[in-house]
Amino acid sequence: MEKLDIFPVHGAEEWTAGMDLAAWITARFSLEEGDVVVVSSKAVSKAEGHMLQQEELVPSAFAKELADRTGHDPVYCEAVLRESRDIVRMAPGVIICRTRHGFVVANAGVDASNCREGEYAILPPNPDSSAARIRDALAERTGKQVAVILSDTFGRAWRVGQTDLAVGVAGMTPLRNYRGCADRYGRELYWTCLADADELASAAELVRGKADGVPVVVIRGYCPQGSGSAADLVMPPERDLFR
Amino acid sequence: MEKLDIFPVHGAEEWTAGMDLAAWITARFSLEEGDVVVVSSKAVSKAEGHMLQQEELVPSAFAKELADRTGHDPVYCEAVLRESRDIVRMAPGVIICRTRHGFVVANAGVDASNCREGEYAILPPNPDSSAARIRDALAERTGKQVAVILSDTFGRAWRVGQTDLAVGVAGMTPLRNYRGCADRYGRELYWTCLADADELASAAELVRGKADGVPVVVIRGYCPQGSGSAADLVMPPERDLFR
Repeated sequence: MEKLDIFPVHGAEEWTAGMDLAAWITARFSLEEGDVVVVSSKAVSKAEGHMLQQEELVPSAFAKELADRTGHDPVYCEAVLRESRDIVRMAPGVIICRTRHGFVVANAGVDASNCREGEYAILPPNPDSSAARIRDALAERTGKQVAVILSDTFGRAWRVGQTDLAVGVAGMTPLRNYRGCADRYGRELYWTCLADADELASAAELVRGKADGVPVVVIRGYCPQGSGSAADLVMPPERDLFR
Repeated sequence: MEKLDIFPVHGAEEWTAGMDLAAWITARFSLEEGDVVVVSSKAVSKAEGHMLQQEELVPSAFAKELADRTGHDPVYCEAVLRESRDIVRMAPGVIICRTRHGFVVANAGVDASNCREGEYAILPPNPDSSAARIRDALAERTGKQVAVILSDTFGRAWRVGQTDLAVGVAGMTPLRNYRGCADRYGRELYWTCLADADELASAAELVRGKADGVPVVVIRGYCPQGSGSAADLVMPPERDLFR
């Protein structure tokens, strides 16, 4: 493979409900066939209106108990529980949840940062569909086929710090499977299956910055192939050794 | 931040014990001040001679038991156990270990792929020192200060597929800490600390390929700062919720 270029698409404007993401992107960046467009899932949540109003959240008894145990605000805990299928770990200051999508992520992805006062952003309920809608709208405006990844910031087991991962994918297979391929000595590469969509999301994060207003990053040179969804990246329960 | 460029450094030659990595790199690529040089840890293991000879490995009773339980070869299990501090999970076909460095990784990083018949590559015993040696040798040859990351391929809890992570770091701080910084509304970003060295390793993997002979990738435009080590990326036991 030749070189990869990673371009931040700047724009300090606030993304708001109902805005046209494809129009925003194409007004600022000239896409080429085969580009990978990585969009912050929070930006998509704002554009699609996936926000919770804090004044509408009434903490349940369970949310209050969770607040007591973790030191978080009870209203915030109520939001986190609404977005969770189950709680994987909790500790003072920490709630690690499995979302309804199957993602294991701190606070079920509920986040007040870079949101208006009184609002929480939640993950899009169907991030693969959101990615596909953006991809279709970009194709309509530009005539170019691109891949779209929705990314969010995840902690990891056993390691310090967070990395961006793919929560929505359209226009590419998120996994690059070497099973059955040969190494340089002709022996089969048994276990290698790379999570390209996650690596692309991480690469994009490097030019993003957290308060900089870079909701979109374009990666050129990767040449996405096939099709698939971010659901392919969620370990099925029967194969999950860390449930 | 402006754009990032990610360059594969091709070279199908076999890396062998005692070879001069800095000479190999500078003969093939013109480094600039502030580049990040990502080197495959397996290539470093070959160059530094961190290989196990299968004929010298005598499986212990424990290695034979592990082989029975997982379906792996007893000699391979002996190698895995020698490189492990403890076993985190095992299942048919799977041994997830904590290495002496503290990394949680399948088979303790012991790997026969792209090795000569009869050999296993192991992780460098001190990957941060290896990274620092390569960095110093590159500075001596070029007069340029670069960062060096040793990368290896890791599976993850809860997600399908693998990504490359940093196992050795020199010439940069591996974490970008936003704690205490403000979001766009002036509120503190409490929990965000990005694992840049891991994201750089993942980004580099995208241009590498597993059988292609791309032991080195150069990332330009990131501007590494500070200092630190890959040990900073290992969750300390007292903060580890997944021990």
